[in-house]
Amino acid sequence: MLGSRELVSRRLPYLVKQVQQKIVTAGGGNRHRWARHNQVLCAKGRNLRTVCTGPANRTERVFKGCFSRREHLLVQGAFGSSYFLTTERSGSAMAACSGNGITYLKQDEAVAVDEELMGPLGFSVDQLMELAGLSVACSLAEVYPSTSHPKVLIIAGPGNNGGDGLVAARHLHHFGYTPTICYPKPTDKVLYNGLVTQCKSLRIPFITAEELLAQPIGAFDVVLDAMFGFSFKGDPRPPFAAILNALKPPANPPPIVSVDIPSGWQVEQGDVDGGGLRPDMLVSLTAPKECARTFEGPHHFLGGRFVPPEIATKYSLKLPAYPGTAMCVRIPQTTTAK
Amino acid sequence: MLGSRELVSRRLPYLVKQVQQKIVTAGGGNRHRWARHNQVLCAKGRNLRTVCTGPANRTERVFKGCFSRREHLLVQGAFGSSYFLTTERSGSAMAACSGNGITYLKQDEAVAVDEELMGPLGFSVDQLMELAGLSVACSLAEVYPSTSHPKVLIIAGPGNNGGDGLVAARHLHHFGYTPTICYPKPTDKVLYNGLVTQCKSLRIPFITAEELLAQPIGAFDVVLDAMFGFSFKGDPRPPFAAILNALKPPANPPPIVSVDIPSGWQVEQGDVDGGGLRPDMLVSLTAPKECARTFEGPHHFLGGRFVPPEIATKYSLKLPAYPGTAMCVRIPQTTTAK
Repeated sequence: MLGSRELVSRRLPYLVKQVQQKIVTAGGGNRHRWARHNQVLCAKGRNLRTVCTGPANRTERVFKGCFSRREHLLVQGAFGSSYFLTTERSGSAMAACSGNGITYLKQDEAVAVDEELMGPLGFSVDQLMELAGLSVACSLAEVYPSTSHPKVLIIAGPGNNGGDGLVAARHLHHFGYTPTICYPKPTDKVLYNGLVTQCKSLRIPFITAEELLAQPIGAFDVVLDAMFGFSFKGDPRPPFAAILNALKPPANPPPIVSVDIPSGWQVEQGDVDGGGLRPDMLVSLTAPKECARTFEGPHHFLGGRFVPPEIATKYSLKLPAYPGTAMCVRIPQTTTAK
Repeated sequence: MLGSRELVSRRLPYLVKQVQQKIVTAGGGNRHRWARHNQVLCAKGRNLRTVCTGPANRTERVFKGCFSRREHLLVQGAFGSSYFLTTERSGSAMAACSGNGITYLKQDEAVAVDEELMGPLGFSVDQLMELAGLSVACSLAEVYPSTSHPKVLIIAGPGNNGGDGLVAARHLHHFGYTPTICYPKPTDKVLYNGLVTQCKSLRIPFITAEELLAQPIGAFDVVLDAMFGFSFKGDPRPPFAAILNALKPPANPPPIVSVDIPSGWQVEQGDVDGGGLRPDMLVSLTAPKECARTFEGPHHFLGGRFVPPEIATKYSLKLPAYPGTAMCVRIPQTTTAK
């Protein structure tokens, strides 16, 4: 069951957004009605956020109860009765939507999306990692051109996030960068060994964590943080803890580009103690995760252009449209989620 | 052993090209010397093409013998003694180079490159197919935008070329096209089944060969020919023979974009009987194959941005540089190879 806080934070902004869209698209008198309704919803939303602290089914009652019969019918008529049900009861996941109209996935949703892509939707991890890593490389190149930022340090963790980083390193080489890879805990699987071989065949140097920590991080023009992804929980272990310290604001690092999740952040709560990485750029993959709401850097991109409508519908994903044949797209900065 | 004709056709144009580059880059008196040498080489080349009909070792002797001692030293000094050895003796493959400075791979070389990429160079077929198919989709989009050419028919063969086509279909969908797939001989392997599942999850319609042949081919805005690739030998079997007939010039088809090899063409000799497909666009993958020398359509692109220096050196590949983060690049039209 979802906690009531989650329910409200996930359901209400989406509802508000839908109403706001109605205000824009509806004509004449209807527009005023929706505008009025929007005010009511927003006011109720603020109340709900402070009032609801009970279990989800209680929240649902409160959530429903705070609308008049007329309001209830209005909302139900516009969006269907499922908007008044909990995620579990309606049987459909519903990612939360923020002021920029973009949805954010919770950790379990991100895991579920990945499992669906690689299960019933027929993708192999090789394919997804290739497209994800390529989109990371393309995003980085949009903001930090190879002419001004040739020296890229890629720090790869042991999991899929690290794999995305290794793929990105290869593409960055082909894009004209001079990458250096730090991959302190290599995973002995065919896929990962292959990614390492591909990079080594391009003569991309691999350095150890010790070598990385022995030199000034400012020797690099940009750092690609591919240590931990959406499966991360708990505290970083050695040598990543020391590497993270070398990338935190007091160390005055070069621009940091994080893959999907700023490493060390909690996937949903973000940088809980406030002392973690402060990346300049975040490349969300497939869809942003909850922690991206608190990302304050100037560059937020989306990559992973392979989401089929099943996934988009099931998780009510609202994502920016990719232009042309681009592998990445800039996500507009959020206005409410700060 | 190579036949002498192949030796000459592969070695001499490359040598000539090298000399021509010397003419451009050398300064002052040297430039004149190389220009003179170029004339000698070209004249000898013409003679060699008609004279040499014996086995490779005899051709090598003739090839060496037709230079004066001074010329021999000049060439050897400039390019190394390996230019006077057969491919087998020098131990290095050397793809042939045409007037546009681009190299062309023979069938066995293309097979060998693929085996190296997927063997010692650590790539999986999933990765290579994903990048190849993506580059095909990007190339097509460069020439036939989705706004003017939304309806793309993808005809996929049973092998890797068909797999590239299925990947391209998926990306074309994401790029805003309305693809239709004809995949008459599906391959029952995990990779191919996955590619089909991915396309079906995007609701891309699959039609049978009979359905394809029952409707006017002009109903589509562009046809992606992904039937046969560089492994193709012999004659096309049903239902591909009939499909090919529906795409030949007398049927007045829409623009055809061929993946790597125009289907039905021989990989090295091209359209031997002159009655095959006349694609408007060819997307060569990794490097063009020999038959691309005779491609006369207006649009020749290169895709597959993953060639490591080992491969480029081993096969003396001369390929155009990809711009920025592009997955494809236009190949300038050849001036001598027609």
